[in-house]
Amino acid sequence: MTTPQSNTLLNFSAGPAILPATVLEQARASILELDGTGIGILEHSHRGPAFTKVINDARDTCRVLGNIPDDFEILFLQGGASSMFAYIPLNLLPEGRTADYIHTGAWTRKAIADACLIGDARTIWDGESCSFRHLPEDGELQPTDDPAYTYYCSNNTIYGTMWPAPPAATGTLVNDASSEMFSRPIDWNVHDLVYAGAQKNLGPAGVTLVIIRKGLLEQSRQDLPSMFRFDRHAEQGSCLNTPPTFGIHVMGLVFKWILEQGGLEAMHDRNLAKAAKLYESIDASGGFYTGHARPDCRSTMNVTFACPTPELDTLFLAEAQDTGMRNLKGHRSIGGLRASIYNAFPFEGCEQLASFMNDFAERNG
Amino acid sequence: MTTPQSNTLLNFSAGPAILPATVLEQARASILELDGTGIGILEHSHRGPAFTKVINDARDTCRVLGNIPDDFEILFLQGGASSMFAYIPLNLLPEGRTADYIHTGAWTRKAIADACLIGDARTIWDGESCSFRHLPEDGELQPTDDPAYTYYCSNNTIYGTMWPAPPAATGTLVNDASSEMFSRPIDWNVHDLVYAGAQKNLGPAGVTLVIIRKGLLEQSRQDLPSMFRFDRHAEQGSCLNTPPTFGIHVMGLVFKWILEQGGLEAMHDRNLAKAAKLYESIDASGGFYTGHARPDCRSTMNVTFACPTPELDTLFLAEAQDTGMRNLKGHRSIGGLRASIYNAFPFEGCEQLASFMNDFAERNG
Repeated sequence: MTTPQSNTLLNFSAGPAILPATVLEQARASILELDGTGIGILEHSHRGPAFTKVINDARDTCRVLGNIPDDFEILFLQGGASSMFAYIPLNLLPEGRTADYIHTGAWTRKAIADACLIGDARTIWDGESCSFRHLPEDGELQPTDDPAYTYYCSNNTIYGTMWPAPPAATGTLVNDASSEMFSRPIDWNVHDLVYAGAQKNLGPAGVTLVIIRKGLLEQSRQDLPSMFRFDRHAEQGSCLNTPPTFGIHVMGLVFKWILEQGGLEAMHDRNLAKAAKLYESIDASGGFYTGHARPDCRSTMNVTFACPTPELDTLFLAEAQDTGMRNLKGHRSIGGLRASIYNAFPFEGCEQLASFMNDFAERNG
Repeated sequence: MTTPQSNTLLNFSAGPAILPATVLEQARASILELDGTGIGILEHSHRGPAFTKVINDARDTCRVLGNIPDDFEILFLQGGASSMFAYIPLNLLPEGRTADYIHTGAWTRKAIADACLIGDARTIWDGESCSFRHLPEDGELQPTDDPAYTYYCSNNTIYGTMWPAPPAATGTLVNDASSEMFSRPIDWNVHDLVYAGAQKNLGPAGVTLVIIRKGLLEQSRQDLPSMFRFDRHAEQGSCLNTPPTFGIHVMGLVFKWILEQGGLEAMHDRNLAKAAKLYESIDASGGFYTGHARPDCRSTMNVTFACPTPELDTLFLAEAQDTGMRNLKGHRSIGGLRASIYNAFPFEGCEQLASFMNDFAERNG
């Protein structure tokens, strides 16, 4: 469960982020030879049998792991989650309709900006005024009449907020789950499109996992360039063009690793326990640490907090660095500190940070 | 110069394709630890110093290797070369202007189809009628009046044709160099945008190298989603979103490897010598082998040919397979055989195939 480097280092990077040690070993071995073929993963044709097995395995494992119903397509796309900000309205927002966006942070801001270039996108809740410390309350959303879809981001990496449950929305629901994908089970009764850039919980940067209800594909606009069309990618099994073969291979290995850990329920329990260690240290510090997210919206993936002064944040980072803890600096937009503790991050690492936090608060409080 | 597997196997894949053995070794090592950082390349933040060095090194090495003038930007994008089919007209084809396309194969067909969805794209030469066996003669192009750009594909992977020199075009010239990028020097006096998917000559699938004259960035449309805008990617040093970090790392290693081989002139000489071995076998076979490309348009990268009958093609493939030669089947659209011999493919491999071809022709002619 520990990564090779975690003997000496703990990598709290917000993404690209820590990956499971066994996955790294398999990825490393596959560079020289994939699966007894005599040819490495980087050098295999995407049309050949070896890679066809890789992508089929990844897709099948994804379906089992995510408990994804048959009426959903699983796509492995390129362009990062940021390209989805355009692809989603291009595919799903026809003229004369609205799309409802719930604005909970930097990534929804970008999604809304792109959607407004493409169609009639409305912000039906705006977290700017609360500095994105919390998510909307029941009844605060102001949906438009019959929107083409409602869009939300289930975990806000920068602010450390996470939806405990999906928003109440009628109709099509789209979720940018980039920084929490497969950290917990997904309710496919309420979601129609869930997507995630790989580089937090799923693998290396350069692949975007898109899980989309098949009915939505039929509504795709027909006048878009092929690479922008979800239906074309689905028809071609994510091989409309040369896909990012290595990234898909590693993603498949990560899916298997999560299954070996017990699947999404077990992963969720582990993630709750990991995050609890850190939130306990914040809450027990007698006000030394301030959490950014309101307690009912706290993320299990990104724990955001600050010391009483920026100078103490700097000291915290320096001392943490000396004990082998890396990448704890908060995002520049809110400052402070951030511990990203995705699926592959070990429980022991959270214990180590919690212990350091307690000690640091005692010495400097 | 041989890859680890080439002791037993020769990989003639059209892409993803063979990579240099030393690059594979470095890529493999970097999975567990990049550059003494204690953290692997897949797990490093794209905003951190380790990856910043990786991308800066890749960009700088690319500039030296390609002899790229300072008034060109070097971008590492996602989405594959196929996404460029849309991005180019979106960025460079304003309303009221035309774009001239030279149609030399399957990839220009797709580029033209996407461009026609976006603006007034014209086919100014059409190779369909000659089954893409040759490229236009001097004077055959029928350019429109003052096109926004002229677009061509300098190497046609499927058909095995390659432009010996760029087309004569006034104004902005765009080149899809995907399957020959850095196989030879590039004339920056006549080109304004040259791009290539990585997975032939440059690295793993999932990165697109785009080299664009800075003046073109200023003409970018301002109403496009960010990820579609070349100017936004340039402003952010190809880190507008999380870039495909591993692919960029490997691409940088490939650039260094080409420099170590003597650079683009030396690589060109090697590629000419490698291809000559195979074309000699075709031409010396007394009509047993038929080359697809007309001799004056022959590619140094993809050598396309056929035996007298499809049955003999099948036998050729089976016997070649037995001697460790892989992926020699021609593209389904033209059948026959194809040897893809990109930069990393060893001269000795071409000698081995040529020798096999001679023997096979003698036995079956």
